[in-house]
Amino acid sequence: MIDSEIINSNPKLYALLPLLHVAWSDAVLTPSEISYVNDLVSETQWLTDEEKKWVKDRLDPKNPPSARQLKGWLAKLKEVEPQLSDDDKHDLVAMGIQLAEFNGYSANTETRLKVKESLRKIEQALGVIGNEVNRFLLDNDDNTLTRNLGTHTTFDRQEMTDLLDGEHKALIQRVKTILTDPEFKYFEGEDHSKYREQVLLWCKLLAEQGFGAQAYPKEVGGSDDMAGYFMIMETLSYHDLSMVIKYGVQFGLFGMSIMFLGTDKHHKKYLPKIGTLELPGSFAMTESGHGSNVRDIETTATYDKVEDGFIIHTPNHLARKDYIGNAACHAQMATVFAKLIIDGTDFGVNAFLVPLRDKEGNTLPGIKIEDCGLKMGLNGVDNGRIWFDRIKIPKENMLDRFAWVNDSGEFESSIASDSRRFFTMLGTLVGGRIGIPRSALSAAKSGLAIAIKYGDQRRQFGPKNGPEVPILNYRSHQRRLIPLLANAYALHFALGYLTNRFLHRKEEEMQEIEALAAGLKAYSTWNTTATLQTCREACGGNGFLTENRIGALKNDTEVYTTFEGDNTVLMQLVAKSRLTEFKQEFHEADFFGILNYITNQAKTVIVEMNPITVRRTDEEHLLDPEFHLSAFTYRERSILTSAAKRFKHKLDSGMDSFDAFNECQYHMLNVGTAYTERIVLEQFIQQVGRTEHQELKTVLKRLCDLFALHLIEKNKGWYLEQGYMDGSKTKAIRRMVNTLCWEIRQEAVPLVDAFDIPASCLAAPIAFES
Amino acid sequence: MIDSEIINSNPKLYALLPLLHVAWSDAVLTPSEISYVNDLVSETQWLTDEEKKWVKDRLDPKNPPSARQLKGWLAKLKEVEPQLSDDDKHDLVAMGIQLAEFNGYSANTETRLKVKESLRKIEQALGVIGNEVNRFLLDNDDNTLTRNLGTHTTFDRQEMTDLLDGEHKALIQRVKTILTDPEFKYFEGEDHSKYREQVLLWCKLLAEQGFGAQAYPKEVGGSDDMAGYFMIMETLSYHDLSMVIKYGVQFGLFGMSIMFLGTDKHHKKYLPKIGTLELPGSFAMTESGHGSNVRDIETTATYDKVEDGFIIHTPNHLARKDYIGNAACHAQMATVFAKLIIDGTDFGVNAFLVPLRDKEGNTLPGIKIEDCGLKMGLNGVDNGRIWFDRIKIPKENMLDRFAWVNDSGEFESSIASDSRRFFTMLGTLVGGRIGIPRSALSAAKSGLAIAIKYGDQRRQFGPKNGPEVPILNYRSHQRRLIPLLANAYALHFALGYLTNRFLHRKEEEMQEIEALAAGLKAYSTWNTTATLQTCREACGGNGFLTENRIGALKNDTEVYTTFEGDNTVLMQLVAKSRLTEFKQEFHEADFFGILNYITNQAKTVIVEMNPITVRRTDEEHLLDPEFHLSAFTYRERSILTSAAKRFKHKLDSGMDSFDAFNECQYHMLNVGTAYTERIVLEQFIQQVGRTEHQELKTVLKRLCDLFALHLIEKNKGWYLEQGYMDGSKTKAIRRMVNTLCWEIRQEAVPLVDAFDIPASCLAAPIAFES
Repeated sequence: MIDSEIINSNPKLYALLPLLHVAWSDAVLTPSEISYVNDLVSETQWLTDEEKKWVKDRLDPKNPPSARQLKGWLAKLKEVEPQLSDDDKHDLVAMGIQLAEFNGYSANTETRLKVKESLRKIEQALGVIGNEVNRFLLDNDDNTLTRNLGTHTTFDRQEMTDLLDGEHKALIQRVKTILTDPEFKYFEGEDHSKYREQVLLWCKLLAEQGFGAQAYPKEVGGSDDMAGYFMIMETLSYHDLSMVIKYGVQFGLFGMSIMFLGTDKHHKKYLPKIGTLELPGSFAMTESGHGSNVRDIETTATYDKVEDGFIIHTPNHLARKDYIGNAACHAQMATVFAKLIIDGTDFGVNAFLVPLRDKEGNTLPGIKIEDCGLKMGLNGVDNGRIWFDRIKIPKENMLDRFAWVNDSGEFESSIASDSRRFFTMLGTLVGGRIGIPRSALSAAKSGLAIAIKYGDQRRQFGPKNGPEVPILNYRSHQRRLIPLLANAYALHFALGYLTNRFLHRKEEEMQEIEALAAGLKAYSTWNTTATLQTCREACGGNGFLTENRIGALKNDTEVYTTFEGDNTVLMQLVAKSRLTEFKQEFHEADFFGILNYITNQAKTVIVEMNPITVRRTDEEHLLDPEFHLSAFTYRERSILTSAAKRFKHKLDSGMDSFDAFNECQYHMLNVGTAYTERIVLEQFIQQVGRTEHQELKTVLKRLCDLFALHLIEKNKGWYLEQGYMDGSKTKAIRRMVNTLCWEIRQEAVPLVDAFDIPASCLAAPIAFES
Repeated sequence: MIDSEIINSNPKLYALLPLLHVAWSDAVLTPSEISYVNDLVSETQWLTDEEKKWVKDRLDPKNPPSARQLKGWLAKLKEVEPQLSDDDKHDLVAMGIQLAEFNGYSANTETRLKVKESLRKIEQALGVIGNEVNRFLLDNDDNTLTRNLGTHTTFDRQEMTDLLDGEHKALIQRVKTILTDPEFKYFEGEDHSKYREQVLLWCKLLAEQGFGAQAYPKEVGGSDDMAGYFMIMETLSYHDLSMVIKYGVQFGLFGMSIMFLGTDKHHKKYLPKIGTLELPGSFAMTESGHGSNVRDIETTATYDKVEDGFIIHTPNHLARKDYIGNAACHAQMATVFAKLIIDGTDFGVNAFLVPLRDKEGNTLPGIKIEDCGLKMGLNGVDNGRIWFDRIKIPKENMLDRFAWVNDSGEFESSIASDSRRFFTMLGTLVGGRIGIPRSALSAAKSGLAIAIKYGDQRRQFGPKNGPEVPILNYRSHQRRLIPLLANAYALHFALGYLTNRFLHRKEEEMQEIEALAAGLKAYSTWNTTATLQTCREACGGNGFLTENRIGALKNDTEVYTTFEGDNTVLMQLVAKSRLTEFKQEFHEADFFGILNYITNQAKTVIVEMNPITVRRTDEEHLLDPEFHLSAFTYRERSILTSAAKRFKHKLDSGMDSFDAFNECQYHMLNVGTAYTERIVLEQFIQQVGRTEHQELKTVLKRLCDLFALHLIEKNKGWYLEQGYMDGSKTKAIRRMVNTLCWEIRQEAVPLVDAFDIPASCLAAPIAFES
């Protein structure tokens, strides 16, 4: 017995059971809904008054069915389930009639139709949407699209790794082998002093392998292999990032400042000891008062004619050197940037070698060092603040590649302008802006490997009664992670391009390469911040546990967007450089020809922006790299010309140039970003083009398409404002992004496996089969 | 002597000096540019061959001027500076002619014009943009717009604080006074065990103040003041967030689960001890295998007829309770959610009180507890994992407000449906989704106070030779921080509204309130993550130092987007709730009337979207709250109908409902977001409307305008796709956002001061005058 007597003697009442069950177990009925359903029941002609009362009683909110009654109804429904067609299973009304008949009700076709119509009205009144209700009535519908999505690999994982590693495969493997040594077990304590010592020890072990001197000339014990240095830094970045930064400070910033700003005598004297870490050192450029504005630093190096040397001095509190890596504990010497003063004349910023500590680690007289203390991340690096109290150094301690004081005590330089000399000196240090984004990218790859492998295994929710579904099968989860995977591949190739340009640089290309490095440094490090933030959230509470490493990756790379040039400042440098180049394109014409150019470009655009292209939404077009690249290039050029026009207009109207630049700052940042994005896309497209393995080519093309379309989607507001695309096209792009995410999700695990991150480095338990 | 003899005997050559100086000190000349300038020089008629040679020699890249020569040129320029008009100072050609005349050159008007024309061509060939060059030639132009921007307060800071605090001013002050006590000095060590004990001690001190029992009934020693509880939690959140979460777990989650799910006997027995922290406890809902999907948890509570009690059991490894706050060290009891099994029948999830430890802190037999270990943040909270090995508890330990086992050992409930009972039970716990976003908002306010006060003081770069400029005067810095300040004010009022709705809730409003809480919890916590990320970057390296607290704020609130309901899951709940409400609006019509509705709405929209409104860009319109609200409402309704249509279409085409929802997931998240944003704007507009103080009203109106326009700008792609606005309007909105940022920047410091965060809580050295 499932209910009162009446239903047993009136099997037709069973016809209402599915609706009643849904009403009580799922829908929340408002009083007005109940009264409306009651009205419908009153109107029915196929129910007697007594039966109507039974139905109405079943809808009385003051007297709801008991939990056991509901379960009884469900049991009855299950009895008839085997007899139901698939269609009926999704139709509460059809199900009800079948149930009634199963329990002995029989009616002629006409009555049957009437009952059906009447029930249909009640169903609509209950507002049950389509077959959504079957979740509560029927078993197992686990044969769904969402559930069946899984990994389907079309390419050889090792071949992809080989393609990513390129010609440095052997060196990369060597670094990975070292990292897998038990000596490189992650530090697990909480005491940052011990952590710092561990990091120092790791750096010594790396130096023993020759990794410290990799980029230095062979004469001083190095391998003369700058490319290898970048590869080492990138590969080390799968491991502890404090170690990477300490490595970068010692062998990169400190050692290479001597290599690039010093001359032979410095190389021979210092590089051998730096490469082996016998001489730990710092790179002391930043001051508290001047983080980004290095040109205005205040530390002085006053030429002392009598002793033929320099006096290094910190003239005020804010002129202390700040945030100097290696300084708080270990550095024995520093490359110090200071304003050279000769006879009261300021000859601009130059670099000097200043001893900080003796071999026992005691701070030398006149030097004051303070620990910067705990940080959000990178606590294995000992950052410090340094004050100099009239420290005397010999003349030979000036790094004299670009400027020097001659025997008569006069300033000499191969570059006349203080300003240009300053930028040339900084230009030689651009390598830091290559190492950092590469390191950032490795961290992003680690985060993606963890989050994607976790998303492939972690199951939550699912179709009714079926097993739960991997969360990476959810569209929104794909939307979060898969475009970031495409970014990682895109930036891998773009950073390879930047590195090559730097390695094979010519003097006249330096301005371009510096802009390229600034743009890619900012873009990649911001991408890493965004990627790791998303990975953390995508791993839920597990992403918050230290053991799963996303926290450390995020916090350690957090400052990457700040050091080696604050990203916002860098993007403005890129914009300035683009404006200069833009200007140079017009040097033969009247400069005011810019305006003509704009008009001309507008004409070109009108051709490109013909109504058909603006609206084209077919797959062939949407996946055409030419379309992607023209959209990116169009955006880059338009923003640049518009920023130039805007800037010039402000100046023409009499605004101060400083104000004018500030008025356009927002556009300037967009100029930098659009330029960088175009470069990244261009390099990715070229990479796809030159990939020979067909399987790799196919999957890379898909990632490249996603990279391009996802960015176009992100900037759709701009494209629509310009009339470059219409709404139907941007909507089609959104759908295509969804489709690409769904497709790439199936190769997402092999795609992160292809990064070939050593298991001992990845380490996060959630990234491994449980 | 500044150069070779020739210039001394040919003062007209001085006319070229400004151009030459710029060419060498700033511009980078390409070989083709030099050759072009040389051609121009060759063509000139006012120079002799000898003079031309002199000029060309000065442009020879192989023989650049020396640094001292350049400095000599500059000195010459400075000599003439006092005689230059302001216009001439910005004109290299005019300056050159003045300089030549100053040094003895004289020419008739005709020649003068010819020289000018010739120089102008050279200037253009050098590509010097307008007056930008004066940065390198002239002193001090510090009277710029950018530099002169500063704080200009139009309102009374205390009045704003009073408005924000509202009726709970006294309680808020009391909490702040307690927090200022030396006992509440921030914990500074690195040992997380000590940190946990410190946090426990703080919670005990709070309990001593009666803050623990604030919300509990007066009969059990409380203040019957739920509103006060939220205020306490919000105010405590200016201090250590581990303390806040521990406070929330003990007095909120644990205590209130008993208050809301238990009955009188539980209240009397437990709440007095919980409010004083005599009985530390946990809230054990989440399991490792089921983070978000609580309905499918696997812990069992089997009714034991013989002993008339329950057996609590963990049936498999993944059914362990996970991430349970207070569990690793301190909890002596837990509210455990488990499936109630009676005679083999599963009656769904219910709550039971299970002892974990004795008073000495020893884990009881059959209970296994593991520490979750270190986390990215909140390390003062002891999260743990719990396994139950057939733990017997008496029948009275079932929290029996909604369901119970009767004397015959049968299940009884006031709510028949397992599903509906489950959601009703969860619904009573919605308070957690109010406390968390309020806590999150306080953290965002702290971050903003630090970053904005720092940005107001920190100076970097500036107009030529003038003092440097506060970084908050830069447009891009304003763009980063000021809209987030507007968000903080907007969410303050929206969360006040949510709290009020919850405090004065009626049964039939619960579904709406739950959706509201879910939406605002997700929206606010994401906003906090974004705000603190931006604050960190906006403070540069200083933002990375632990002492400046942004790291802790960011890392501690990181998991806010995950706990109390994963944000992505919550936004989908909001969407489902919106779909149901949407459906109910049509229950009296044919359900398929939705399609008619859509058509009708389209008609309404056509009226609203007349060409004039679509294009209106006047200030009156752009700052009209009615325009803002219609834009938000239009977006909300359109996305909702389109998601409903899409979902129904998928179902109609025979797709499984689980798949169909997944297909629409991206839209569903937008439904949730658009709904939440509309509510927030609506409440902000109402707040502005009811604010009486004219000065406060003005500044709040400006913040509200910025909140609205910044979001419209963010969604401009969507509005343009819909044709709701055209490109000229979205561009005007972008300009208006810039203007509002510039205006609000001038009151940004008083606006964060109005949060009235105790100095000892804010603590960050960079937030205070140095």
